[in-house]
Amino acid sequence: MSIRIKFLKDVRIENPYLIVGFPGIGYVAKFALDYIVEKIKAEKFAEIYSYSFPSFIIVKSNGLAEPIRTELYYSNNFIFITGNAQPITPEGQHELSDFIISELMRKYKISMIYAMAAYVVEGRVEEPKVYGVVTDPLLIEFLKKYGISPMSGGSISGANGIILTYAKEMGIPAVCLLSETLPYTYGYYADVKAAKALVEVITSITGIKIDMTDIEEKAKGFEIALRKFKEAEETTIKEEREKEWKRDLTYLW
Amino acid sequence: MSIRIKFLKDVRIENPYLIVGFPGIGYVAKFALDYIVEKIKAEKFAEIYSYSFPSFIIVKSNGLAEPIRTELYYSNNFIFITGNAQPITPEGQHELSDFIISELMRKYKISMIYAMAAYVVEGRVEEPKVYGVVTDPLLIEFLKKYGISPMSGGSISGANGIILTYAKEMGIPAVCLLSETLPYTYGYYADVKAAKALVEVITSITGIKIDMTDIEEKAKGFEIALRKFKEAEETTIKEEREKEWKRDLTYLW
Amino acid sequence: MSIRIKFLKDVRIENPYLIVGFPGIGYVAKFALDYIVEKIKAEKFAEIYSYSFPSFIIVKSNGLAEPIRTELYYSNNFIFITGNAQPITPEGQHELSDFIISELMRKYKISMIYAMAAYVVEGRVEEPKVYGVVTDPLLIEFLKKYGISPMSGGSISGANGIILTYAKEMGIPAVCLLSETLPYTYGYYADVKAAKALVEVITSITGIKIDMTDIEEKAKGFEIALRKFKEAEETTIKEEREKEWKRDLTYLW
Amino acid sequence: MSIRIKFLKDVRIENPYLIVGFPGIGYVAKFALDYIVEKIKAEKFAEIYSYSFPSFIIVKSNGLAEPIRTELYYSNNFIFITGNAQPITPEGQHELSDFIISELMRKYKISMIYAMAAYVVEGRVEEPKVYGVVTDPLLIEFLKKYGISPMSGGSISGANGIILTYAKEMGIPAVCLLSETLPYTYGYYADVKAAKALVEVITSITGIKIDMTDIEEKAKGFEIALRKFKEAEETTIKEEREKEWKRDLTYLW
Repeated sequence: MSIRIKFLKDVRIENPYLIVGFPGIGYVAKFALDYIVEKIKAEKFAEIYSYSFPSFIIVKSNGLAEPIRTELYYSNNFIFITGNAQPITPEGQHELSDFIISELMRKYKISMIYAMAAYVVEGRVEEPKVYGVVTDPLLIEFLKKYGISPMSGGSISGANGIILTYAKEMGIPAVCLLSETLPYTYGYYADVKAAKALVEVITSITGIKIDMTDIEEKAKGFEIALRKFKEAEETTIKEEREKEWKRDLTYLW
Repeated sequence: MSIRIKFLKDVRIENPYLIVGFPGIGYVAKFALDYIVEKIKAEKFAEIYSYSFPSFIIVKSNGLAEPIRTELYYSNNFIFITGNAQPITPEGQHELSDFIISELMRKYKISMIYAMAAYVVEGRVEEPKVYGVVTDPLLIEFLKKYGISPMSGGSISGANGIILTYAKEMGIPAVCLLSETLPYTYGYYADVKAAKALVEVITSITGIKIDMTDIEEKAKGFEIALRKFKEAEETTIKEEREKEWKRDLTYLW
Repeated sequence: MSIRIKFLKDVRIENPYLIVGFPGIGYVAKFALDYIVEKIKAEKFAEIYSYSFPSFIIVKSNGLAEPIRTELYYSNNFIFITGNAQPITPEGQHELSDFIISELMRKYKISMIYAMAAYVVEGRVEEPKVYGVVTDPLLIEFLKKYGISPMSGGSISGANGIILTYAKEMGIPAVCLLSETLPYTYGYYADVKAAKALVEVITSITGIKIDMTDIEEKAKGFEIALRKFKEAEETTIKEEREKEWKRDLTYLW
Repeated sequence: MSIRIKFLKDVRIENPYLIVGFPGIGYVAKFALDYIVEKIKAEKFAEIYSYSFPSFIIVKSNGLAEPIRTELYYSNNFIFITGNAQPITPEGQHELSDFIISELMRKYKISMIYAMAAYVVEGRVEEPKVYGVVTDPLLIEFLKKYGISPMSGGSISGANGIILTYAKEMGIPAVCLLSETLPYTYGYYADVKAAKALVEVITSITGIKIDMTDIEEKAKGFEIALRKFKEAEETTIKEEREKEWKRDLTYLW
C-alpha cells in the first residue's frame, strides 16, 4: 500500500476535534501547530507513511535518521496533525488528506476540523489578520462570533486546503484559518508573527489554554529580524539602482 | 480509491442522453453546459471526486470552500456533466472519462453522448461554425441532418475529447461538437459567442427548449468587448512597431 | 483498471510469433509493421486501452474519432502489435509491455518475439544496416545466420526496447532489430528506407512472403525527398554563414 | 503488479544482514557493493522488476539485452542489494525500498541493514572519511566503536537513504554509511577512492574478509586520473580567464 498509518499507542478518543498544520507558506501553520503541541504536551500516537513524500531521509544533528512522515498527536479530545513535509504531487496531497479523514472518521468519528494556513498579502502587516474559510454556510456565523473575517475569494493550495475537500464530501464541519503573511521566504525561518495570530485564534475558539510567552518573544525577535532584512533589501535595491544609473551614464558618454 | 462518485439523490433514469461540457479552451463548453443546466433547472444528483484534480480548494466570495469536483445534473432523460476543473494529468483525464461512462452505463445504460468542445481557428469568425466528430461512420449522416460539418482532421484534447475514446470502446454512439473560437485568452471570461453556437446546435439536436435571450445578450456584450480588445491590441502593436522603428533610427544616427 | 484488452474476435493461435512495431524514431518500426500487416492482409483481433496514452482523440479526415490504442493483428501463427502512439510515461511503457506479454502468454503462449526499432547514426547511410539485440546468448548465432550484426552497446528506449525486459523476465526468446536512420525529423514522414530494411530482414527470418514493390517505390521517393531536403539544408547553412560573415564585416567597419 | 520479485533460486537464510548499494552520486555505493559481491563470489538469487525504472533496455557490447532491475545476491547470512538503476520517480524509490524490506522481512526476517551512499564535500579530500546515519540512538555508540562519525545534519536522497525510512518504520536497526566524494561528475567512472573507504568500513563492521588489492590499485589509478583532470580544469579556467581578459581589452581599445 502506498499510504499507511502506524499506531504507536492505542488511544481512546471519541468525536475528537482535528487541528491540522502542515508545513506550507512561511512555515506558519506548522510553527503554530508545533507550538500548541509542545505547550500542552500533546502525545504522539500515530505516524502516516506515504510514497508521495519527497524521496529523502532527514539527518538530524546527532546523526539520527528522521523519515518524512505525517505525525498525529493527541491531548484530551483534540488530535493534532502535522509532519516534516507535504506530499510532492497533487495526487499525493489528495490521497493524504482523504486518508487522514477516512481513517480517523472510521476509528474515532470527527466532530470538527480546524486547518491552519497562511495567506500571502502585499505590503506591511502590523498585526496579521486571520481569515476563515468554511465548508458550510452555517459556519460563517461561527467565524464572526470569534471576530474572524471570511476570506473573500481565491484558493488554498496544498494539504491544509485540500483537507476541506474531503471534510465537505464526508459532511464533517471544517474551517481553514489563514493568517496574513508577507511574500518573503525566510529560508528555514517561520513567520512567527503570523503563527502567533493563528495560535491566538485557535486557542480562543477551542478553549485550549497555553502559555504564550515564548511565541510572543519569538514574534518580537522575528519582527526585528524582518525589519533589518527589509532595510538591507531596500539598501541593496537603492545601490543596484545607482549602479544601473551609473552604467547608463557610461553608455551616454 | 482515487476516484469515486457520491450520489446526492437516487435518480431513476433509463437510457439517458449524456451532455458533457468540461471547462476547456475559451471556457466554451462549460459556459454552454452551465447555461442549459440553469435554464432548464436541471438538478444536481451526483459529484465525482478524484485525486487527479488540482490540489487546491476554491474559496467563494462569501468564504465558503468549494472543492474541485465533477458535477452531474439531470432533467428528464438527460444527464449533464461538468465541473470546476479537469484532472491535471493525462492519466487522470482518462480515468475520469472512463469512470463516468462505466458508472453511468452500469447504473442507467447510456443512449448517446454529446460532448462539447472548442476549435481554435485563426482570423475573424463572424458567426462561429460548429463542427462534429463521431465515433461511428453512421453518425456522419446524423451530423449532416443538422447542418453540422464533420471536422476534417486534427485532434481533441482533454476530457471533452477523451470521453469519445471510452464511448467508442463500449460501443456507445457519441458525438463531439466543436465551436469555432479565436486563439485568445480572455482571462476568466468565456467566449460566449462560441458557447451560444453550441447551445443552439445541442438544443436543436436534442429538442431541449430553452430561452436564448440571456446568452444572446451576453454574446453581444462579448462581441463588443472583443472588438475593443482587438482594437486596443492593434493600437499596441502599431505603437510597438513605431517605438522599434524609432529605436532603429537611434542606432542608425 | 488502467489498462485492458478488448478482443474483437476469438482467435485460435498456438505458440504464436509476436512482431512488434510501435511508433518511434523516424516512424521506422511502425511503417515497417503496417506495411507487412497491409500486404499479408493480417486481421485485427484485439485492442489495448491504457490511461497512460496521451489524453486526446485523433480526428480522421472524414470526422471519425480514432482513439489512441494498441492494435493486435494476426495472420497464421503471427501476431502483429502496433498502435497510433506509445504511452507517454515510462511507467506506462513498462505497464503496456508487461501487459502485452502476460496477456498473450496466458492466452496463447508465445514462441518468440521480434521487436523492431530504429538506430540513429550520424552521416549518410547509403543502405541502412540492421542490427540485432537479443535476450539470450544463444540468439547471437541466430542473428549471424541472417547476416545481422549484434548491436555493440547503448540502449533502446520505449516500448520496442522495454518489451525485451519482460520477455527476458518470462524466459521468452526475443530479438530487437534496429535499422539505421538519420538524426532528422521528417515531420509526419517515415524513414521508408530504414523501414524497408527492417521488412526485408523480418520477412527473411520469418519466411513471410510479401510484395516489396510499393515499399521500394516509396523508399526511392523518400531518397529523392531526403536528398532535396539535405541540399536545401546545406544551401540554408551556406546562406546563414554568408549572412553572419557580412554581419561580422559590418561590426568591423 | 507494478513491482515484483523473481526468485532464481530457493535460498535458506535466517535473519540475514542486508548490504545495500544502489547506483547514486559518484557511483560510489554501487562500486563498493559490486566489489564485495565479486570478491566473495556472492551468488545472485533474485531480481526485482519495477515499472518505475527508466523505460529503456541496456545493450551490452555483445548485443545482449540487459533489463533494468534490482539484483539480490547472497553469501552466508548476508544479502547484497544493488542494480543498474534507481527508480526515476520519488514514488518509485519509496515503493522499491518498502518492497525490499517487506519481502525480505516476510521471507527471512532481517537482523540489520547497512546502506551505502556518498556525501558530497567541497575541496580536496586526501582520504575520504566515512560518516554514519542511524535509525536508533543506540546505534550511535555502534558507529563510534568503528571510528565512524555521525553525520551532523542534512539529508540522504534516493533509495540508499529512503530504505532507512522503511527500516525505521518496521523497527529494523539500520545504518547508512556515507563516504566523502568530490562535487565532480566523472562520466561513467566511479569515485573508487570513496568506494574503497566504504568497503574498508563495511568489511570491518561485518567481519567479511576480502582481498583489497584490486580496489587499492584502481583507487590509485583514479587518484592520478583525478589529479590530471583537475590540472586540466585549472589550465582551462586560466586560459578562459586570459581569453576573457583579452576580449575585454579588445572592447577597451
